[in-house]
Amino acid sequence: MKHFRKTSFPLDEIRRFLEPGPVVLVSSAWKGETNIMTLGWHMVMGFEPSLLGCYISDANHSHVMLRKSRQCVINLPTADLLDTIVDIGNCSGAEVDKFERFGLTAVPGTHVDAPLIRECYANFECRLHDGGQIRRHGIFIWEVVKAHVATSPKLPETLHYRGDGEFMVSGKAISRRSKFKPENL
Amino acid sequence: MKHFRKTSFPLDEIRRFLEPGPVVLVSSAWKGETNIMTLGWHMVMGFEPSLLGCYISDANHSHVMLRKSRQCVINLPTADLLDTIVDIGNCSGAEVDKFERFGLTAVPGTHVDAPLIRECYANFECRLHDGGQIRRHGIFIWEVVKAHVATSPKLPETLHYRGDGEFMVSGKAISRRSKFKPENL
Repeated sequence: MKHFRKTSFPLDEIRRFLEPGPVVLVSSAWKGETNIMTLGWHMVMGFEPSLLGCYISDANHSHVMLRKSRQCVINLPTADLLDTIVDIGNCSGAEVDKFERFGLTAVPGTHVDAPLIRECYANFECRLHDGGQIRRHGIFIWEVVKAHVATSPKLPETLHYRGDGEFMVSGKAISRRSKFKPENL
Repeated sequence: MKHFRKTSFPLDEIRRFLEPGPVVLVSSAWKGETNIMTLGWHMVMGFEPSLLGCYISDANHSHVMLRKSRQCVINLPTADLLDTIVDIGNCSGAEVDKFERFGLTAVPGTHVDAPLIRECYANFECRLHDGGQIRRHGIFIWEVVKAHVATSPKLPETLHYRGDGEFMVSGKAISRRSKFKPENL
């Protein structure tokens, strides 16, 4: 698997990677246990602070770990990890040590106790910004407090879930920067 | 502009189009006025009922119209509408009749008063499922109550925003259906 060289990335610009809707891997740690879940239900909610909303059902083994620890890492995998992503989403952390099972490397975070997944293109360390919507709506509102992003390639090839076992791989880039008002970029 | 032939689509399968993270156009109607806004900050939140969470700042002219009418249509544009999407996002409904300015056709909804945009690949009629998170978090939780989807092509070419005026166009499709547990599809 690829090992990316990473650098710190401005928190107010991480939407570049998350807003297009890629499948992400959410890693967590609680009481000596770690876990990873595959997630496609997330949205950007702001730049400063850098907020991300995630819908995470309590049917996931990660749910309690995330709610109790109030921390996670949102990891951005690339298309070559497709089978790993699918397999992570089709087993439970209640039965499997996912780092060990899938040969992934847990790297200590600098701002949170949850581990970064080394084999992912980017790692966003998050603290729970507001947990008030978890019980009623399943919405975790995270603040990204540290971003580690690969120095190359500039744009990763990401995976986007369509349901029913089907994915879309990110395609070509188009800029319309010149048509935007600066405040709308 | 393209005029798609559409058919009714199962509500519990619309994630096929929205979960990959495309930019959408949100149309609304309130007190005789209609409006359209460009939105990339949304996430799937369930199948049955079919729920969609959207972060919509009160800086948008649409915000009050959506909050008061408690209805909208989420329209899915294809890549050929790129310039229209950008232009819609860079002017305000307070000053412009966006249907007229951009030559878009307002089609009456069957379940809501907000208009469908005929030139879009799909139209999802929505009613506000829970407005309790609007004032504090800007989150509108919509229930999709009727879906109209083009009969062809099977998969639309969608646009995904990266910030800073840059877009990603949806790429190739890959299936891993055989690797999923049925309950995880």
